[in-house]
Amino acid sequence: MSFSLAESRQVLERTPEVLEAWLGRLSAEWLHANEGPGTWSAFDVLGHLIHGEATDWIPRARIILGDAEDKTFPPFDRTAMFAASLGKSGDQLLAEFARLRARSLAELDAWKLSEADLDRVGRHPEFGEVTLRQLLATWTAHDLGHLAQIARVMTKRYREDVGPWRAYLSLMSWKG
Amino acid sequence: MSFSLAESRQVLERTPEVLEAWLGRLSAEWLHANEGPGTWSAFDVLGHLIHGEATDWIPRARIILGDAEDKTFPPFDRTAMFAASLGKSGDQLLAEFARLRARSLAELDAWKLSEADLDRVGRHPEFGEVTLRQLLATWTAHDLGHLAQIARVMTKRYREDVGPWRAYLSLMSWKG
Repeated sequence: MSFSLAESRQVLERTPEVLEAWLGRLSAEWLHANEGPGTWSAFDVLGHLIHGEATDWIPRARIILGDAEDKTFPPFDRTAMFAASLGKSGDQLLAEFARLRARSLAELDAWKLSEADLDRVGRHPEFGEVTLRQLLATWTAHDLGHLAQIARVMTKRYREDVGPWRAYLSLMSWKG
Repeated sequence: MSFSLAESRQVLERTPEVLEAWLGRLSAEWLHANEGPGTWSAFDVLGHLIHGEATDWIPRARIILGDAEDKTFPPFDRTAMFAASLGKSGDQLLAEFARLRARSLAELDAWKLSEADLDRVGRHPEFGEVTLRQLLATWTAHDLGHLAQIARVMTKRYREDVGPWRAYLSLMSWKG
């Protein structure tokens, strides 16, 4: 096990800045490229991250830390962002995500979680009992997973353009 | 085919800022984590990107655009960075990469490449004739591939910590 709250926080607080540097004022060709029907663009990923701040990570941690007898998390809606992002620009989504993430981390900090708190449990609607530590580790890994996804979606635009070098570019063939 | 010089340049110029936001002043636990013996950490990737600026992308483009009869590229050394990075900090590597990338892009801009220039060819030591367009598309995809790699290496630190959520985190099982 490698989890540390301080180290996770380091990653979580950087994600908005990484995304801003990567996607801020980026051309629509990059921002809205996807991997085909039913797949997500970088723009869609931003909407998904926003929806996660609003309904997933901190709200689930609140359930774990709260007094309710039933600590089952509501299921996460993986397509809610398509409607929520309509009519917004990438830069608007970046700003919204940065604002929500800062608010999430302020709430996390205010809890001053102990190791015992990190052992507290909630119930995932699919796989049952999970700890707060697992939730926070997953929040961190989830950020990193979507950074990798953005790289993958963008690189696949150049699948043909790279010619024979494709054999060296393992990201081109990652299905995700 | 999707390649455009202006769009590639957008990605190439952002990579140093993305890496700075992601890895600047990051704890050693994240920066030096790797995936086991013989694999690379984020720190190693930075060294690899620096070595690419110095010996791969622009130097190979110079060969393509030059007058030499033999336009075979020298092979790229994929382990040179281990020695070159010794004793340096991550922040030093970030600054060095940013400086070299800016210099590379200044040279690229100065060439004012035409579509005809992009069709000019060199010879890859392994797979033969390649165009300047393919080289520049690969440079772009190569940046994105290493951003995804950094995400992967970091996320694998939490392979056990995420518990049952591992099943949802496809980056955890990407071999790269």
